[in-house]
This record gives sequence, C-alpha cells and structure tokens, in this order.
Amino acid sequence: MAVSIGQPLESTIETNGTAYSFDEDPPDMPGLKKSNERFRLPHITDLFPDIVPKYSTFSTKSSCLIRGNVQGPLRAKELGKMFVDDRDRVLLKVIRYAHASSSGAECLNDDCTFEHWWLSRAGPRSHIYFEPTEVNAAIVTCGGLCPGLNDVIRQIALTLTTYGVTDVKGIAYGYKGFIDEKIRDIDLTPQSVATIHLMGGSILGSSRGNSKTSEIVDNIEKRGTNMLFVIGGNGSHAGAMAIHQECFKRKLKVAVVGVPKTIDNDILLMDKTFGFDTAVEEAQRAIKAAYIEAASAYHGVGVVKLMGRQSGFIAMYASLASGQVDCCLIPEVHFSLDGPNGVYEHMKTVINRKGHCLVVIAEGAGQDLVAGEGGTDASGNPILADIGQWFVKQAKKHFKEVGFPAEFKYIDPTYMIRATPANASDGILCSVLGQNAVHAAFGGYTGVTVGLVNTHYCLLPIPEVIREARNVDPDSRMWHRCLTSTGQPDFSPPHVESN
Amino acid sequence: MAVSIGQPLESTIETNGTAYSFDEDPPDMPGLKKSNERFRLPHITDLFPDIVPKYSTFSTKSSCLIRGNVQGPLRAKELGKMFVDDRDRVLLKVIRYAHASSSGAECLNDDCTFEHWWLSRAGPRSHIYFEPTEVNAAIVTCGGLCPGLNDVIRQIALTLTTYGVTDVKGIAYGYKGFIDEKIRDIDLTPQSVATIHLMGGSILGSSRGNSKTSEIVDNIEKRGTNMLFVIGGNGSHAGAMAIHQECFKRKLKVAVVGVPKTIDNDILLMDKTFGFDTAVEEAQRAIKAAYIEAASAYHGVGVVKLMGRQSGFIAMYASLASGQVDCCLIPEVHFSLDGPNGVYEHMKTVINRKGHCLVVIAEGAGQDLVAGEGGTDASGNPILADIGQWFVKQAKKHFKEVGFPAEFKYIDPTYMIRATPANASDGILCSVLGQNAVHAAFGGYTGVTVGLVNTHYCLLPIPEVIREARNVDPDSRMWHRCLTSTGQPDFSPPHVESN
Amino acid sequence: MAVSIGQPLESTIETNGTAYSFDEDPPDMPGLKKSNERFRLPHITDLFPDIVPKYSTFSTKSSCLIRGNVQGPLRAKELGKMFVDDRDRVLLKVIRYAHASSSGAECLNDDCTFEHWWLSRAGPRSHIYFEPTEVNAAIVTCGGLCPGLNDVIRQIALTLTTYGVTDVKGIAYGYKGFIDEKIRDIDLTPQSVATIHLMGGSILGSSRGNSKTSEIVDNIEKRGTNMLFVIGGNGSHAGAMAIHQECFKRKLKVAVVGVPKTIDNDILLMDKTFGFDTAVEEAQRAIKAAYIEAASAYHGVGVVKLMGRQSGFIAMYASLASGQVDCCLIPEVHFSLDGPNGVYEHMKTVINRKGHCLVVIAEGAGQDLVAGEGGTDASGNPILADIGQWFVKQAKKHFKEVGFPAEFKYIDPTYMIRATPANASDGILCSVLGQNAVHAAFGGYTGVTVGLVNTHYCLLPIPEVIREARNVDPDSRMWHRCLTSTGQPDFSPPHVESN
Amino acid sequence: MAVSIGQPLESTIETNGTAYSFDEDPPDMPGLKKSNERFRLPHITDLFPDIVPKYSTFSTKSSCLIRGNVQGPLRAKELGKMFVDDRDRVLLKVIRYAHASSSGAECLNDDCTFEHWWLSRAGPRSHIYFEPTEVNAAIVTCGGLCPGLNDVIRQIALTLTTYGVTDVKGIAYGYKGFIDEKIRDIDLTPQSVATIHLMGGSILGSSRGNSKTSEIVDNIEKRGTNMLFVIGGNGSHAGAMAIHQECFKRKLKVAVVGVPKTIDNDILLMDKTFGFDTAVEEAQRAIKAAYIEAASAYHGVGVVKLMGRQSGFIAMYASLASGQVDCCLIPEVHFSLDGPNGVYEHMKTVINRKGHCLVVIAEGAGQDLVAGEGGTDASGNPILADIGQWFVKQAKKHFKEVGFPAEFKYIDPTYMIRATPANASDGILCSVLGQNAVHAAFGGYTGVTVGLVNTHYCLLPIPEVIREARNVDPDSRMWHRCLTSTGQPDFSPPHVESN
Repeated sequence: MAVSIGQPLESTIETNGTAYSFDEDPPDMPGLKKSNERFRLPHITDLFPDIVPKYSTFSTKSSCLIRGNVQGPLRAKELGKMFVDDRDRVLLKVIRYAHASSSGAECLNDDCTFEHWWLSRAGPRSHIYFEPTEVNAAIVTCGGLCPGLNDVIRQIALTLTTYGVTDVKGIAYGYKGFIDEKIRDIDLTPQSVATIHLMGGSILGSSRGNSKTSEIVDNIEKRGTNMLFVIGGNGSHAGAMAIHQECFKRKLKVAVVGVPKTIDNDILLMDKTFGFDTAVEEAQRAIKAAYIEAASAYHGVGVVKLMGRQSGFIAMYASLASGQVDCCLIPEVHFSLDGPNGVYEHMKTVINRKGHCLVVIAEGAGQDLVAGEGGTDASGNPILADIGQWFVKQAKKHFKEVGFPAEFKYIDPTYMIRATPANASDGILCSVLGQNAVHAAFGGYTGVTVGLVNTHYCLLPIPEVIREARNVDPDSRMWHRCLTSTGQPDFSPPHVESN
Repeated sequence: MAVSIGQPLESTIETNGTAYSFDEDPPDMPGLKKSNERFRLPHITDLFPDIVPKYSTFSTKSSCLIRGNVQGPLRAKELGKMFVDDRDRVLLKVIRYAHASSSGAECLNDDCTFEHWWLSRAGPRSHIYFEPTEVNAAIVTCGGLCPGLNDVIRQIALTLTTYGVTDVKGIAYGYKGFIDEKIRDIDLTPQSVATIHLMGGSILGSSRGNSKTSEIVDNIEKRGTNMLFVIGGNGSHAGAMAIHQECFKRKLKVAVVGVPKTIDNDILLMDKTFGFDTAVEEAQRAIKAAYIEAASAYHGVGVVKLMGRQSGFIAMYASLASGQVDCCLIPEVHFSLDGPNGVYEHMKTVINRKGHCLVVIAEGAGQDLVAGEGGTDASGNPILADIGQWFVKQAKKHFKEVGFPAEFKYIDPTYMIRATPANASDGILCSVLGQNAVHAAFGGYTGVTVGLVNTHYCLLPIPEVIREARNVDPDSRMWHRCLTSTGQPDFSPPHVESN
Repeated sequence: MAVSIGQPLESTIETNGTAYSFDEDPPDMPGLKKSNERFRLPHITDLFPDIVPKYSTFSTKSSCLIRGNVQGPLRAKELGKMFVDDRDRVLLKVIRYAHASSSGAECLNDDCTFEHWWLSRAGPRSHIYFEPTEVNAAIVTCGGLCPGLNDVIRQIALTLTTYGVTDVKGIAYGYKGFIDEKIRDIDLTPQSVATIHLMGGSILGSSRGNSKTSEIVDNIEKRGTNMLFVIGGNGSHAGAMAIHQECFKRKLKVAVVGVPKTIDNDILLMDKTFGFDTAVEEAQRAIKAAYIEAASAYHGVGVVKLMGRQSGFIAMYASLASGQVDCCLIPEVHFSLDGPNGVYEHMKTVINRKGHCLVVIAEGAGQDLVAGEGGTDASGNPILADIGQWFVKQAKKHFKEVGFPAEFKYIDPTYMIRATPANASDGILCSVLGQNAVHAAFGGYTGVTVGLVNTHYCLLPIPEVIREARNVDPDSRMWHRCLTSTGQPDFSPPHVESN
Repeated sequence: MAVSIGQPLESTIETNGTAYSFDEDPPDMPGLKKSNERFRLPHITDLFPDIVPKYSTFSTKSSCLIRGNVQGPLRAKELGKMFVDDRDRVLLKVIRYAHASSSGAECLNDDCTFEHWWLSRAGPRSHIYFEPTEVNAAIVTCGGLCPGLNDVIRQIALTLTTYGVTDVKGIAYGYKGFIDEKIRDIDLTPQSVATIHLMGGSILGSSRGNSKTSEIVDNIEKRGTNMLFVIGGNGSHAGAMAIHQECFKRKLKVAVVGVPKTIDNDILLMDKTFGFDTAVEEAQRAIKAAYIEAASAYHGVGVVKLMGRQSGFIAMYASLASGQVDCCLIPEVHFSLDGPNGVYEHMKTVINRKGHCLVVIAEGAGQDLVAGEGGTDASGNPILADIGQWFVKQAKKHFKEVGFPAEFKYIDPTYMIRATPANASDGILCSVLGQNAVHAAFGGYTGVTVGLVNTHYCLLPIPEVIREARNVDPDSRMWHRCLTSTGQPDFSPPHVESN
C-alpha cells in the first residue's frame, strides 16, 4: 500500500537516490549530472524496484510523532524539518584556486577552474525501506583498534532501537566471526551498550585478515541478517562492497553500510575519520614525555614513533599541536639522513642551539631507507622494518662516529594511543556516523559508507573512498605549517633552478 | 621601486583584495561579484594606494629562500606552492537543500536555491606591505578566559619573528592596558613564549569592559604601533573595527587584525572558534561527576550548568558527547517546567525508569523564566539570574511539593573549563589562526578577522561576523541528534495542526 | 571436632583476640596488658565460646593448599608465612618526643614519656569461624560519596568468593535499604563487580540518615545475614556498633565489620582513610584553574572551597601539594578577616607583590564568623552557611569599601572530587581494607573496623576510632609546612608574652 | 658568643646528634643506646667541636619571629612547638610478630622478639650551624628521571631562601657538572623555581656515571660551596658519602645531605621513595591500554614491562592497583615458563577462561632465563637483555609451537612514566623531603639522608640505607595480596613436604 502524504514528501520518495536524474544541471547546481554518475548511491530499489517505502518510525519530536498516529497529510512545516531530503546535496570541493601556484592547488593547468561535485547528504529519511520488526541487524568491527569503536557500535545499536529494531547482534572478532563456529555472537541491547563508550577498544573484538565473501554471505543468509554494519578500514570496506555485490547477485535484501575506521585518517574525501583527533591528542603525552627526557639529558634526543603506514597525518598534526617537535618525518616526504641537508645535520644544529632535540617519525616514513631491513616472512614477502628503532640505532651509530655525544630516548606509544577511549570531539563524530549508518540502511541505501565532508555528514559509494590511501600533500599549507613549526629544512636535495 | 617577477605573482599584486573586481562572474564562480561586495576585505592600499609591496620574508622551504638572495624571476613551480593567492576563494555555503522542509534548511521559499558566496582564503602572501624591521606589533586579549589564548599569543609572536619582526609587545589586561598607565607592557620574544601554550589562561591577562577608541588610538600613535592583534569576542571585535576606522581617519598605517575568541562558539559563519572543542571535552568531567553523584543517590538528580549566554552550543555538544544526559536546556529552545510536556514531568519519567536523572543547562537558558530574579544593579539594569541555582531551587521545591523524593547535586564547572589549556585539536586551530592573523597583517589587510570555514582558513571583514550571535538552529540535525540522545520531548506546547 | 595441627597454630587458636591475656607485659612488649584492655577486639567466641574454628579455606599459595587435602601437621615453614597470627601486634605510637616543646608533641608534662600501645594486626587467619558455604554476606555503603567505594565493595565480594562464599548481596542506598521494601538488593558476583572500580561512586548507591537499629537487625535476622560489611563514616560506624551489640543481645552469630569511609580523613588513629589521597589529587585541578583565573585577571583572587566540615586535612594537603596557594583557612585554626593580622591584609600584600592571590578554604572553616548566616531549618536548627560563598561576598564588599580593586573567581569542586574513581594509591588501600574486612569476619571478629596504622593494616574496636573527629594539630609540622608554603601569617591575635 | 635561652632549648644544643649519649637506655626507650650507635648522624661539630650555633632564622609563625628581635628568653610554649628537638626519636620497627610463621615475619627464631630501633626525627632545629648569608648552596640531580625531581629542587631552593640564603646554584647534568667546564651552573631563585614542579624531568638535567670524588671536592672547594644537596639513588648516595668524608678529611665545613631518588622504591628502611606513587599511578595507563588491546583481540595477550631492575615494587603495586593483571613477574620471585606450574600454562588457563590475558613483568625479572641473551658490551661485561621483548618473543614461539593461537601486544611505558610530573601525594613527599634536607644541613648534619619512616620524616646516616637494594619479600602480605589479585600460582617447583 502506497503512502499518502503531501507533495513535498511524496516527491522525495519518487526521487530517491536511485532515481535521481535530471537531464541537465539545474542552474544553481552546475556539475550535478556528472556528480550523480560518479557519486550515485546503490539502493535497495535497484534490486527490488517495487518496494514501497513506509513512513519512518524515527522521530526526534514528541509533538510531531508520525509513528502510527498520523491522521492526514502533514505539511513540511509541521514536521519540524525532521528529515533529510534524498536530494539534499553537499559540495565536495570548496576552494577555488586562482592559480596552480597556490598552496595546495590541485589544478591541471595554470588557469585553475572550479569543479562542482555534489554528494548525497546523510541523515534520517521520512520514508523507510525496512519494517523495523523484521530487521535482523549485525555489526562487525575489523582491523586494528581505534578510539571510538565502542561509540559507533553503541550508536548503531541505540539508533536501531529507536527505529524499533529488537534484534541486534555483534559479530565477534571481525569477519572471522562469521566463519568460525566457535566464536559466538554478542547480543546488543540498549542496556548492554549503555556505557561501553567510556572504555577504549571494541567490545566485539576485532581482527585483521579476510574471509571468503561467499562464506560470509552464506552465513548472512543462514542468519537472515538484512542489515550489516561494517566498521573498518579500506580493506574491510572492500570486503563490505563485495558482500553487498554478492547479496545483490543472490537477490538478498540486505543493506550493507560501512563506517570508515582508520586512526591514520587516510580515507579519501573526508574531513577526518573518527579516532584521529583522539590519537593526535593522546600522542601529546608521548611527545611531552620525550621532550622532558630529552631536555633533562645532556644532548638528549627524544624520538617518538607514531602511527601512519602510508600517511603522515598523525605525525604532522601531533607535531603541530605540540609545538615542541624539531623534526617530523612522514612517508609522503623523502628525507636523507646524511649530508648538509640531512636529518642528522638538522639535529646537531638544534642540539647546539637548545641542548636537546625532539624527533617525531611516522611508522611508514623512510621505507626506502630500511628496504630489506625487516627481512622476509615465511612466504618470502618483505616485512616492514620498525623505522623507529632502526632510526635510533642508525643515529646513535652516526653520532658516535662523528664524536657528537647524544643520549637517545625512544618512545613507541602506539598501543597506548589506540586503546584510548574517544575524546569528546570523536565521541560526537562517532555517534553521528553510527546514527547515519542506520539512517542510510533504513533509507534503503547499500554498498555505501558515511563520512564528514566539509563539516557535513554525507553518504558515499564505497568504491570512491577506497580507490587509494589519502596522503599528506607536501605542497599543502598544513605541511608547510608543520615545517614552520619544527623549523626543519626540506631534507630533499636542494632545488635546482631551471631558469 | 616596483618588484619584478613573473606574471602570475605580478597579477596577484595588482589584484589584491582591494582591487578585486570582475565585471561579471566567471563561469565557474557564480556569485563572485556579489561576494566581492559583501566580503571585500579592507586593505592598507585603500588608504595608501601607492604602497609598493615587497617580496615576502616568510618562507617554509629552505631551498626556496627568497629572502634577499633572489636573483631573477622565480616561476610558480619553484616556489613550491608556498603562498596563497589573494584571489583564492572558499565557498561559504556548501549544502544545497532540496526543499525548505529539509533539516536545517535555510531557504526563503519551498524551492530552495543555492547561493554561491566566496570568501578570501587566509595564508601567507608572496608580497608584503610592511618592512619587518619597521614593524611595531601589539597583541591584546580581551574578555573572559578561553582555552588556547596563550597558543594564539605564542603563534602570533613566533610568526612575527619568522617574518623578521623584533618588536612584539603584549598589552596587559585587555584594552585597559592601553589606557591605564600603571599597567606595563609585556615583552614577547621566542624565548618568553616558548612554553606558554602548556598553561591555561592568558599570560597577558585579560579584562572585560571598553575603553574609548580615541584614547586607544592616541596610545597606538604614541607607541608607533603599526600592527595590532586583538584576540576577543564580538565586543572586542567591534572595538577592533572602531580602532581600524579611527586609524584610517587619522591616516595611520596600522593593520588591525582580529582573532575571534568565544568559548561559546557563537561567532557567525565559522565552523567553530578556538577553545570550544576543549570546553566540550572538559565539560565531560563535570557531566561524568554529576552522573556518578546522581546514580549513587536514591532518585538522584545531577544538574550541570555550562557556559552559553546566548547560544547553547557547549551544552548541546557536551550532552551529545556524553551520551549520559537526559535533558539539555539551551537559550534557543523555549521550555516550560510544569505541565505534561514540562521538564519536571520528563525528569520524573526518567527517574522512574532509571532511578536517576541528569540535566545540563546552559547559563542563558530559560531567561524568560528567571526574568527579574537576578535583581537590578546599581544603575537599575537587570542582572541575569544564575539559572543553574535557580533551577535547582525551583525543582527541589516542586519535587517536595508533589511528594516525589529527589536528591539534587549541582555542579558549576565554568572556571575549571575556561582555565584549561587547549587540547591538541584546539592547539592546532589556535596556531593556524595566530599564523594567519600575522599573514593577513603583512598582506596589508586590516579591519579583518580570521576563521575556519568549511575546514579552510579564511579572512573575513569584521562587520560580517559580529552582526549578531550565532545560535543553535532548533531545526538542525545537530539539535535533533541531541534530542535523540537525551530522549527529551520538545518541552514547547504541543503542536497544533493547522490542517 | 577439634582440629589437630602443630603447636604454633594451635596456640594461635587458643589465644585468639578475645582470650589474649598475659598477667604482665612481656619484656619486649611494655604496655601490652593495658593495650589489651583498651584495644581488645570483640569476638564471636565471646558469645559462642564453644565454636571450633576450621582450617582456613583462603590460600595464596597453590603449592600450600590446605583446603581439605591436608593430611598431617604442617610446619610453619611449609605454610609459607601465609597467615597472620592473632597475637601479632602493631605499635600505635612511634614518636618519642624529647620535650613538650617539640613540634607536634602530645605530652602531658615537659618530660615526655613514651607510651606503648599495641594494636591487633589485620590479615588472613589460619583458622576461620564461619563455614563459607553457610555465609550470607551483605555489604552496605553509607553517607556521601568518596573515591574508592567501588574498590572496597569489589574486594569484599572477590575475597568472599576466594573463601568459597557464593551468597553476597549489596544493600542499596545505605541503611535505608534494610528497611524500605521498595529498594531491592543487588547481587554481587565476581563477574558483576569485575570492573566497577574503574568508575567513581558506589554501585550500591548511598544515602545519609539513620534507621532504627532494631528494625535493621529484624531485617538481618529475616534474611539470615551472618556477615555484614559497613562502609561508612563515624555515624555509620556507630550504627554498625549498635547492630553488633543488638546481634549479640539477640544471640545472633553475625560478624559486623566496618571499613572507615571519610574523604575528610578525620578518623582517629589511622594514617589516612581511603579516598583522601584521590581527593587531594583531584583538588589540584580546581586549584590550578583558580590560579590561572586569578593570574589572568587584574588583581585576580581565586577562591577554592574544599571539603572538611570539622577537619582541614584536604585543604592543608591540597595547598601543600599545589605550592601555589597563598592562604589556607581550616576549621582548626581561628582567623580574623580584618585587622593588621587579618586575612584581607595578607591578601592585599600578596596581590601587591604578585598581582593576584589564591585562597583555599575548608567548608568548616570560620564557622564562628558565619554563625547564624545559614538561617535555621524547619525544626529551628541552625544550618551551616556556605563559608565559600560567604567569604567571597564579604571580601568583595571589603575590597570595594577600601577602594582596592579585585576580581574574584570562586570554585566549588566538591562533587567533581567526590565522584572521581580512586587513584592507584587509594585503589590499593581500598583493596587491602576490603580484603582485611573479610579476613576479620572469617577470623571471628565483630564490632571491629580496619585501618592503616603506621603503614600496617590493623583491626580496631569501633568505639576507639569514633570517639571524636580527628583534627589537624595546629602545632604539628604538617600545618607549619603549610604555613611556610603559603607564606600566610598566623591570623590569630598577636601573641602576648606572659614573661 | 654563646646564645642564652631557657633550659629546654639549651639542653637541646648540648645534646645535639653527635653528643647524644646515655649510659643506659631510659625505661621508656629500650634499645636507645644501641640505636645511637647504629643510627648516629655525622655532625659538623664532629669536625669543628667549638662551633656555637645561633638561633634559627627559620620561623613559621609570624607572631613568634625570633629572627633578630628576641629580647629575652622564650619559653617552649611561646615558640608554638615550632621546632624539632635533636633528641626526638622515631621507631624503626613497629610490628611485633608473634611467631616466625607470621606473614612477613623477620624473626631469627620461632619466638620472635621485638627490637627497638630509634631514628632521629627530621625537621627544623631551634639552633643552626651556618650563617645564612654565608651559605653557598649547590643542588645536583643524578641518575635516571623520576617524578618529583623538580619538586625537590624547588623546595630546597625555597627553603634555603626562607632561612635567608641568597646563593643557590644548580649543578647541571649530575656530578659531571662539577667536572666538565663546558657545563654551566643554573641560578636558582624563588622566581626561577616558582612553577618548575608543574613539569616533569629535572630542570638541572641529570646523568648517570661517576666522577672522581677528589675532583668534585676540588671543585667544591674552588666554588666555596658549603651546602651540597644530592638527589640521587644508591650510587649517588655512595658518592655523596664519599664527598662528605673527603670534605671532613680536608677539614672543610660542608654539609652534604642526600635525598633518596629511586623510582623503583628500592631504598632500605623507608616507607616509600618519591616518584614511586606517581609511577604506580602512571603505569595504570599502560596496563589499561594493554588490557583493552588484549580484550579486543582473539586470544589477546597484553604484556607490560615496568621499571624495577632489582625490585618488583612498581610491578607489584601497579598490578594490585589495576585489579586486571593475571600474572605479575618480579625479580625477587623465580618463575619457570614451561611445565605444569609454568607461566605459559597459567596464561593458557586464563585465556581459556576469559578469552585474554594480561602480564606485567618487571625489567629485572627472570634474569636467570635471559642470562647471556643481551650480549656483552665493549668491556666484555654482560648487558642485561630486555626481558619484555624476550618474553614476548619466547611466548609467541611457544604458543605457535603448541598450536594455541594468541595475539601479543607489548607496551614499554618506561619513559612516559619517568617523565610525568609528580602527583599530589608525591608532590607533598618531595616538598617535605626537600625542606628537611635544608633543615638537616642548617642543623649541622652531614653525610645524612632524609626519608619517610612509619609515616614520620627521619634523618638517617647514608651507609645504613645503601647497604643493599630493598626487595619485595615473597613472604609478605603485600606479595600474597598480589598473588590473590592476579590468581597466579607460585610458579616455583611444587613444595615438597619434609614430614
């Protein structure tokens, strides 16, 4: 039975994410058509075009309860702007660079032009594609720990409850929990999740490693799960996409929604990912300690290794926030240790001036220098060397050889950072991401993920955000600010003018 | 003598903020012309059109030092994208609402249209309008404390030093420090500011209250100050604008740049102001304590008063982050205490269900209820009543009258929040704002302020940001999320359908 | 059936706490006889002299398990010194003052003599007076919150489990939980208490106020409770003693054991009570904030009110730890506000020297000054005025009258301090107190409490510790250190020499 | 000119620490004579018997100022018990064990007897042996960092100022600072030390390694230093004793006073050393993080290495405080990894029960197992292997071999713990130790150190406290509590009954 409401809402339904199609861009939305091709969200009606959505059971306004007791058509005004329209759009690009020489400019030619890319806005829809009492939801956390996992789990569970869902399961220890029969599910109720956000880690447990998509979907079918929430990184999102596609192939009505989890903040298109802020905050403890150790020793050198296999965001932000770091080494920027522009020379200059020196190094920095140092594993694949310990060993050797006394103090706070509960800022980010993941699933979207873009919460097709890792741009203002703050030179070979 | 560089940079100079004028909008920048009228930045060349700028003495790349030793023209590529072009623009509006009924929609009619408003980007310019050795800079902090004041002071001082400035003074105790002869200036050097960001408060001291603009400018003239950095709220920014205008009137070459300081986050157009994030974080301590006190008492009621005279951002964000608050009262949303939709009824429902209840109340909430309760001051002006204590007193009385036992625990953490050092996130925000204030002054801008807009740092004309206080939109998703999180009804009288 | 073990242990049994009687002091234990009279512990065998104790089921050594499987006599050596002998004694007085003029000397005449007072040592006994499977234990927390309550509850529950007890109940909301039928008990299991120490407050809830002893014992009888653990202050200990006496009167075999809970540290004879250390630690936040607020204002005055109705320990220790307090006012030391030796004069001196001033005031300080200010309650009894707010109001008035500008910032962190989880030091103290309460009950002691005396854990008869509140000695080194640290004069009228 | 005061004080002078000699023990002080032999404090009058002390310039009572303006004899009463009498004594032993089988009993035979050992009390003396204006004081910090170093430095400097001393120097980077001419002294004034206690580390810098006593004393002579305060561990105290002896040999009037600094708490006779409490507190962060990491992984094993080369106090106390540790390994208790009583077996049992396991290991634990693993240094001396990393490596290997999946997370928080500022409890301990070091020097004592004994501050002859490292007693209640808390068996081979 089709719902009957006033025009504005009705048109919303007819033009849900899947159907959104203008022949040409509206005058105030240049680039919309191209955006709709690139950022179009898969929707459950792609597979089941005949599903008739229902009024949402979600409401934030007690005086506007439309749960059951709606007598006649409500006008938009009465609904108190409670819902997000499927056609609401958020701009992806917001800077117009005047010239390719502008800091951070991503222009293809000198005469930069501005591209309009429109993303779908996240949030509760007025109409939903799942009957809450029929929802069988599962949540899984994958990969390494990250502050805020429990906040996301909690909000997904609580928001599902708000919609009226009663069957919410946590899959233990990542995708493995779908396959391994010894691993039992965890019941998630408003009571059981009430205070889990006060603790770090994941109450579901987490694990790395992949499982066969087909086996996971077999299990999903067997359980009757029809909403799956995957909290994980690039790899786990790829897994979620594969699950979504396998479900479509098997004609299963399953909404698969991701919540990007990467403490390294290396997901494309998003302002920041949850846990990052807390990581930068918590890294301050290690940096402060290293500073104190360095400053209290004769020619003391503090070295702090921070997370970031491919991206130096944590190292860069933590150095900036600290204001006490003299040298920040990240994967995106090449450096040489020796030579007049090398790291050692800078360290000596700093020690001679201040008496001590503080180095922050991202775990993925200088991998060209340690290539082969980590040895190979059983399969002959190279193991990444621990750049922090390697750097300290090399530097000690160098300083000894050149007769420059120096005392090294090395801190690796990785696990202490990862296991921290989310700070307030991340707590809010996690909560809203978790809520929006549920809104997306009820809104019928699948194969999508949620993220903060230009301060607004958006839904994105998974493939767009996992194309590659997001990196620090060495030409960005933020990296330049880091250079200004540390006072470090660019360790790359000196610039040769081409004139 | 005019500088001689390649085209791109030269055109930058000719088209600085003051001169920016297209006859019509470029195709990829609709709305530019209108934006240039509204968000045009006052510039020192408005007063002194003949000033010839110099190459910047600021550099982040040791291999690209253009300080003095530049022989010939450098091409953009060689400069490593070090500078921000005067014509770089950031979009102010980034959401396109499909309909006026969308959550948070700010549309004038049902068929919302998208408006392009372009703001000037903050950052270092390739050319500067002040000779560093001739700069005589002053920094002043006004109004109540806010986490991060010392971070901003420190970065302004350090960045000035990076440009080559040696004369940096702190004006003590706000604008009063310009007038009161007993109050001495504070010398700010890289050494003296090195670790001030580790402490809360302001090393300059702060104070409320205004001083006569003419007297301040007399003093500025007497000192020979030509760069003034004002860290303060709406009132202090109005003061800064007045100082700028008086300087122009007197034909003084003084760059007056503001850095918005409001722990309440109530400045227009900006993503957030510094200190806010720390305040929300620190408020968690009080909320947690109130929760523990409430949960450990029979029918315990925890009440936490948080800052926010006109805007409930801190109360709303702190409640959301906590996940433990049952009732959040803010100035923007009317509430009644009594009646079936009143606050008391909600509290009783919560206590009956959970055994205890947690209320967060912004200091400016319910001022209609306490009108006159605060008495009048010497001049007969009404004094704002302390809504927190008043609420507790009223609620105690009510619960006693209706024979519903309840034990109240009231916490006012205001000063403990304000005096906290900035957290890492605010530390970065403060640093970049401070740096950009200096870049703005050297770039010749005056009567401007700096702010984060859609994750990008921008320069804004002061009058645009102080038109009124920024408020929580009761129709926004964020407030709705808060309602979902607390479970509170809308305390306003029930909605009457107009049919 | 009497147990059969080697001499040393057997003699332990025969000479349990109740029977300990030498005719005269052993040469190396002068004062023992007198101590045995004063500090003799009531014992279950006082009421039931025929009870035959059993081997303890408590063991810390897996290789020395004597639980059931002991075949023959074990020699002391084999038991690995696992148990505490009933006759082990700890000295109460450990300083021998040379003269009545020595700092802190408690001598009756100039020629101080040293008194030996011997206390019973707490800890597990080799023999126990309760069959674990028959134990029906109850735990109750009374009075205001104090850091560590959950730690004590947790350890009592865990240690009972270690002995083999399976029936452990928490009585909710203090003694009231015995009487009020609507209040339900809380089951305490190793699982349910596993992580409660990570949270502040009391999971049992707490309340002030007394209930009739006879009604409580009626309820104890009805439940069949035979071990009662009371975590509370002086009043609650008096209640525990009355319950013990009523049980003896009714010939009930009930062990009543107290754990002193007073954040104010005002219990006699003990080194310190749990929660005090955490309170002093947490008070630093408020003091630091007040310092920052004061130092950032023109003639700023920070005022922090700390707990301590009758004793100024928290105020004194917090001031000492801080090193930033200029004036510490406690109940034990009279002060006048006005006059050349008054508080105001000292504040002005400090402000003139440093620019700001920091005052810590205990809640019970200066009650002579505010007598009557608090009004009377319904029964006509005087209500204690809030000295903190009163002091600020008076001081503001005074400074205004004398034309000395000053800006006041008042912080009352009471609830934020009380609701904190125990720090590590208190965590250990709580754990050991909780364990020892259980050891005491199994050892047959009742009407006793546990405490740390000269770094050793002891059992004490309740009446000895609640005779009066413990106070700061104004002639002690600790108070003198506080004076040295704050630099405050003695505010009392100048000393008049009697010559 | 000899001072002229009333009897009590006069006799104090005549019976200063050096002269204290009774022919036999007073009745209330058995053991005094023997104590005076063992714990007698070296005194400046041993070398210069004719020095006439002066009235102290130290006062805590403004109404009792005896600085200069004392006209006639003051009676004890008037002095307000301001001073500590040279003959005040504190008992070292306070437990009387009933039998050698009592937990922790240190008895030579079964019939334990109680020994009275009396120590000198620390604190300000009424008479002083140095003219403040002639004092030339030096402070040096040696060895590794420890929370509270700056607190001690600060209080020594402030207390010297209170006496009237104006010449206070910090020797930089340990004893090395006496010898190395490139290392400059640091002026210590009330202003320069005002807030140093808010930071961790040592503002003087610290270093390990010894310097020749004769060279140090040459330098002391050259500088004219007559008060030397050494903050350091056993080795540095041995150095201080040697300096004291060399000064006596050269007939230099120099007071050498130590303040024991060992984060490991391994100094004999003392309740605890400063920094230990903070270390145990700070270790909780690492333990909590390891717990979260372990609990969030499938068969997760958290391993935390804590300080303690010879003594396991930090590991033991941190495990006890945490309540989450399953296995605590310390140097004093042998353990085997393999076998039915081994560590691995216990870990597996715990993992099978709870799903994860948490191990705390002191850095000096199991050195018998890693003997030779650390290699030898240049001189052929064995280097201690890092037991933490070794244990993880071995355990990983073992679990892999036996096919028991387990995921290890290793945290070494050493530097983060050491560099922390002192918590409030340590802040007070440090302050009082620093004050008492100065009181000792002014009181004429030298070759002494200060410490907390049975909650009282005492002076001790250096050799008594550095005879050996203080260890955890495996038969003590504290270790047994740790075993109860972790649930670990005794990993030693099973006990064999001798019948």
